[in-house]
Amino acid sequence: MTFTHDQALFEKTPYLLTPGPLSTSVATKNAMQQDWGSWDSDFNTITADIRRQLLSMAGDDDDAFVCVPMQGSGTFAVEATLASITDSTKPTLVLSNGAYGKRAAQILSYLGRPVQVLDKGDYLPPLPEEVDAWLTAHPEIATVVLIHCETSSGILNPLEAIADVVALHGKRFIVDAMSSFGAVPINVQRIQLDALVSSANKCIEGVPGFGFVIIHREVLKTSENRSHSLSLDLHAQWSYMERTGQWRFTPPTHTVMAFHQALAQHQAEGGVAGRLARYTQNRDVLVEGMRQRGFQTLLDDAWLSPIITTFFSPRDPNFAFARFYAALKARGFIIYPGKLTEVESFRIGHIGQVDSNVMNALLVAIDESLNEMDVTDTRPPQAAYSMGELA
Amino acid sequence: MTFTHDQALFEKTPYLLTPGPLSTSVATKNAMQQDWGSWDSDFNTITADIRRQLLSMAGDDDDAFVCVPMQGSGTFAVEATLASITDSTKPTLVLSNGAYGKRAAQILSYLGRPVQVLDKGDYLPPLPEEVDAWLTAHPEIATVVLIHCETSSGILNPLEAIADVVALHGKRFIVDAMSSFGAVPINVQRIQLDALVSSANKCIEGVPGFGFVIIHREVLKTSENRSHSLSLDLHAQWSYMERTGQWRFTPPTHTVMAFHQALAQHQAEGGVAGRLARYTQNRDVLVEGMRQRGFQTLLDDAWLSPIITTFFSPRDPNFAFARFYAALKARGFIIYPGKLTEVESFRIGHIGQVDSNVMNALLVAIDESLNEMDVTDTRPPQAAYSMGELA
Repeated sequence: MTFTHDQALFEKTPYLLTPGPLSTSVATKNAMQQDWGSWDSDFNTITADIRRQLLSMAGDDDDAFVCVPMQGSGTFAVEATLASITDSTKPTLVLSNGAYGKRAAQILSYLGRPVQVLDKGDYLPPLPEEVDAWLTAHPEIATVVLIHCETSSGILNPLEAIADVVALHGKRFIVDAMSSFGAVPINVQRIQLDALVSSANKCIEGVPGFGFVIIHREVLKTSENRSHSLSLDLHAQWSYMERTGQWRFTPPTHTVMAFHQALAQHQAEGGVAGRLARYTQNRDVLVEGMRQRGFQTLLDDAWLSPIITTFFSPRDPNFAFARFYAALKARGFIIYPGKLTEVESFRIGHIGQVDSNVMNALLVAIDESLNEMDVTDTRPPQAAYSMGELA
Repeated sequence: MTFTHDQALFEKTPYLLTPGPLSTSVATKNAMQQDWGSWDSDFNTITADIRRQLLSMAGDDDDAFVCVPMQGSGTFAVEATLASITDSTKPTLVLSNGAYGKRAAQILSYLGRPVQVLDKGDYLPPLPEEVDAWLTAHPEIATVVLIHCETSSGILNPLEAIADVVALHGKRFIVDAMSSFGAVPINVQRIQLDALVSSANKCIEGVPGFGFVIIHREVLKTSENRSHSLSLDLHAQWSYMERTGQWRFTPPTHTVMAFHQALAQHQAEGGVAGRLARYTQNRDVLVEGMRQRGFQTLLDDAWLSPIITTFFSPRDPNFAFARFYAALKARGFIIYPGKLTEVESFRIGHIGQVDSNVMNALLVAIDESLNEMDVTDTRPPQAAYSMGELA
């Protein structure tokens, strides 16, 4: 397990402490220093190797799944998956507790496919017993969609327990693992799912430009001619790739090469376990340091993800997010605004090429920034206390 | 006007003599050596500048058009445009003479929108009088789609004359200018069109990862809620970008930075005129050299584009494309297979960071490769002579 902190990075450009695009290694960016023909066999070999490595990362030991990359942002891959798998007459249940759950439901309504939403609001987790009750009450549901790590709040939703419930009810299960795959273990041998979706610029630490779907081969086979879109036709992308080794339409060649390099670093760091260990340490250093400074996390420890954490904004009247953001950016750190409707908050990501040294440096920068702003009372706004208790 | 041939490129990696991805400059690739936050104001400024420069390149002096970038390959941007503009009851006429015309028709059938195809086969140009006759016979048509440079054959279709006919009939006009924009003048003040589509990795010499649409503002305004797809919703992408300065979903940040750098080089070379001059010289050197060696072009000079040229394969029984490709690749040149159904051919692109020196070096490599293969008779196959006369 190796992780070498890129000193050069800090001097050149701010750290991106966000849910992605994130800070990537110099080696990953160097992999973009060459042009590749997208139909040349050298490039096809890289594509094939990426697909193989991703399947292996998902624990697909018996070749039951296939990996299909898709150009565009992660949302493009989610849309391609929903279009391929969901039923056009039987409803899909979206377990929603943030922006990405809402987006999945929105895609289904674009597709004109029936959707039900188990809406837990901004930050509460969908609980297995709630899913069980919903599926019992609505036997007409064909498919369930879960956002694994909902970065709106930073919550890590209870994937395994919900997967068990969905399997018990015999429904299809789609996991939006955009922000978790590669850092939180998801093994298709142990978790019964039909498809998971992620993207290049998340925990595998590539640069943005494509997403990918790990999907059960037999499920994908049934999806021929089901897509609403030529560009986003997952089955067509897969069958063309199987036949020719090429992407069906021009791939983001440089992004693909960067991702291939990022995968090598992922493996060198000890795979998913190694990455989880680093991200978890990043989070622990950050959360502990922030709590020492009087900040409070939105979520109880049980729900904190190793990906991104939401903190309540200080109640101090001198605090303003825009100034805080600018002060931290000037010191080399880019953080992320909050997304809660009820109370002011901000988010700090702990994924990408950052380690606990970076987190400690960030804490110093936060001290300096608060000092500069003359913020002393870092306790949450009063309103935060009236927010519902988390399970 | 400056063009500096990158010597380093040749030593490291083959030249991509294809319709894209193509060989880009070292400076363009260097622009990808930094990570950017996709919601940070620094990045938003770059996006805004790109959009402004593209509108200016299209001659939009009176702010009648807007530029909307779209993640994915060029086809994603074409699909987004067709979904936004074409009518769901009145037919769209696709002027087809190759793969990209066929693809436009295929997108329309995915969309479930009525389509008519004026099919000129593999390489014959749609002529203005044919379009006129078709539109006269089919007044129900609402929109016409033309592929400007159809790289299947390398033909440059007669855009201006067809635009005049379409305008005379009062139809909407969509131009797939994927492979021409930036090197062949298209001025929206002089050519009446509703939208043109191109992509980052063509004549502006960026790397692949997004496309863009230059579309009449009033036309785009009427397309709200018309898209079949959340990801490809052009109106939503535009209105979000106007409101926030950001891309609606994660952009390919590094590709965007590379494109911004490529635009600066485009301008330094003298804009469209400068690029056209270089590409035309590339083609002329190539075509003249190939003809001296006994090769024949598929198309008459009048229809040759400055983008890519199709040559008939030699009739010599020792010629095999796979060996020719490998021999040229070993010498630093990647060419492109042909796409004619009737007779063997191959294509050589002359866009990207290549100049006449590269073309001359290619001709030497072709001599060596033919020699290695023991090919002496470079005349076209007999079948080529029975192909229809071009207008």
